[in-house]
Formats: sequence, C-alpha cells, structure tokens
Amino acid sequence: MSSLPLVNIKPLTRAAFAPFGDVIEMPGADHFPINNGFTERYHRLSTVGLAQADDKAIINIFASRRWADPIQLTMLEQHPLGSQAFMPLDNRPFLIVVADKTETGEPRSLHVFITNGQQGVNYGIGVWHHPLLIIAEQQNFLVVDRSGSGKNLMEVELPTQLQAQIDLQSLIDEFIEA
Amino acid sequence: MSSLPLVNIKPLTRAAFAPFGDVIEMPGADHFPINNGFTERYHRLSTVGLAQADDKAIINIFASRRWADPIQLTMLEQHPLGSQAFMPLDNRPFLIVVADKTETGEPRSLHVFITNGQQGVNYGIGVWHHPLLIIAEQQNFLVVDRSGSGKNLMEVELPTQLQAQIDLQSLIDEFIEA
Repeated sequence: MSSLPLVNIKPLTRAAFAPFGDVIEMPGADHFPINNGFTERYHRLSTVGLAQADDKAIINIFASRRWADPIQLTMLEQHPLGSQAFMPLDNRPFLIVVADKTETGEPRSLHVFITNGQQGVNYGIGVWHHPLLIIAEQQNFLVVDRSGSGKNLMEVELPTQLQAQIDLQSLIDEFIEA
Repeated sequence: MSSLPLVNIKPLTRAAFAPFGDVIEMPGADHFPINNGFTERYHRLSTVGLAQADDKAIINIFASRRWADPIQLTMLEQHPLGSQAFMPLDNRPFLIVVADKTETGEPRSLHVFITNGQQGVNYGIGVWHHPLLIIAEQQNFLVVDRSGSGKNLMEVELPTQLQAQIDLQSLIDEFIEA
C-alpha cells in the first residue's frame, strides 16, 4: 500500500448522512398501503433536486466496475445543478465517500460510509462525493439525476492532507465473499 | 378458474412498449464511459414526466406482495399528472399490464408483458396500467414518480368484454421456481 492514511468506514445511517443527502431505504420511513394492500408505498424517500426551471429528472443505469485495491481517494466531484441518486440493483453493499465544505466551498474532511445492501443514496445539490466505489467486482445501479443546460460537473483534487486510502480487500472478504 | 379469458403474455420489448412509455434496460441503449472508465453510463433511459410547473420528481420504494392465482384483471389506473417508473431491486421478472385508449380516453384493449428480470418501465403520463403484479411471492421496486397538487390517480373498472385473467402458477413455475 501507499503511505496514505486508511479511512475509517462507518455504517450508513440517515442521521450520519443527513448533511449530504437522503438515504433511500425502507426502515424508519413513512409508508402506507396502496393497491388494496398488496403494495406498501415507502413514500418520498427523497426528492429530485433541480436547480433550473427547464431541468428534467432523468433515469439511467450505471454499470460499475471495482477499482484497484487499495482505493486511493485523491479527488471528489459534485453536481451544482442537480441531485444524483444511486440505488443498487442487486442488494449488495457499496461505498459512499462525501465531504463537508469549508466556508469557501472546498472539501474540508472526508466521511466514508458502507451501505447494508438495501440502501441507496441521493446526493444533494452541490455535495462533494467520490465517483462510484463498489466492493463487488461488478454492480449495476439505477441512477436518477438531472438533464439540462449548463455545466453540472465540478471536480477537485484533494489537498494532500485530505487524501486517504481504502483497504478494499478486507471489505471484499467481509461483505462480498463472506 | 373463473370463466374470464386467459391473456396472451408477451416478452417486454422497447418496440412493443413504446406507445405506453419507456423500458428501462441497458441493451440497445446509448451509453458512454465515465469515472475514468470504471462506470458505463446508460444515459437517459427515460425522463420523468411532470405536468405542472411546481411538481417534483420523488423517489420511493414499493414493497409488493403477489396477488391470488388466477389474477383477475378487472380494473386499471392512470396518473394524469406524472409518469411512474418501476425498477425491480432483485433482478426478477414481473408483469406489465397496459391498455391503449379509445378516442374518448377509455381503455380499449389490454397488452400484457413479462419482463426479463433486468428490465424496468416508466409509464407515460396518462397511460392506463394495472397496479403492480409480481410473480415472486414478494418483490421490492424503486419507484420514481410525481408529487404535487391536484388529483393524480384515475381508476376505471374494465368493461366485461375487456376483463381477463392471468394463470399465475404457470409463470411461477417457469420464471421463479425454475
């Protein structure tokens, strides 16, 4: 491994993720029966954020491959004009890396979460996050984000003191091949 | 079984479903690499339809149970103010029942499809469709639809000559317990 410090990885919870967006999961959510009781609707787990009047919410699939081990966290991205939601289509956990911001909007400190397999997330508008990091070799996600005019991608290289790494093999051993 | 006629069930394809909405699937869709090639983005498989300026696209989970066998198709519903997308979270097939319309907007004839497990759908605004019908005992879906003012649910009882039934057990045998 390189000399970057290892990150601390926490289980994803609504409370811990609240500054960054919504956790898309059933436990703890409002729900009610529809369709004569044959379906339970876990309602409005998140709302698509669109910055401009003409923006559209769009539905995509992201087919992702696993990064090399150890994962080097050296950059983040954000979308200033829309939220971006990720829901795994195979009930397997994945990683969430976000950062809170300095007063001038730069990443201040990293927060790394692992999902429980049944959780998705919706990153709020302008939230610094890492591109998709999965633990399985391959994983597909339903992604709900934004289409419209203007530049909706900002990328930043992390300052050296924020760079870190993730020991991927230990996560593979614990969550995928266990 | 009752005396209702058995429906003909066709595999879901983009072409066959085009009058009713979008199929959410990777094959045949535009895609391009992002995240240094670690993710392939299958872009804009569908767009959320919202009828009113203040409407929001919302993200929900529907937890559905299987109906009794045989399934009696006696009603349909539609949402006049927004699209409604369903993506299964477990890679298992489910049923899609839609209807085209008479000149006065009533259901004219039923079309019944079965998905291949990797497909979702987005019903267009105002498309007559049946409430969720699954083949597995239980199945969860990510649902992207609309929140806003006004009445967004219309239901109609099917005239006798359009009523039909689905032989669920043969589908269970073929697609779930095979």
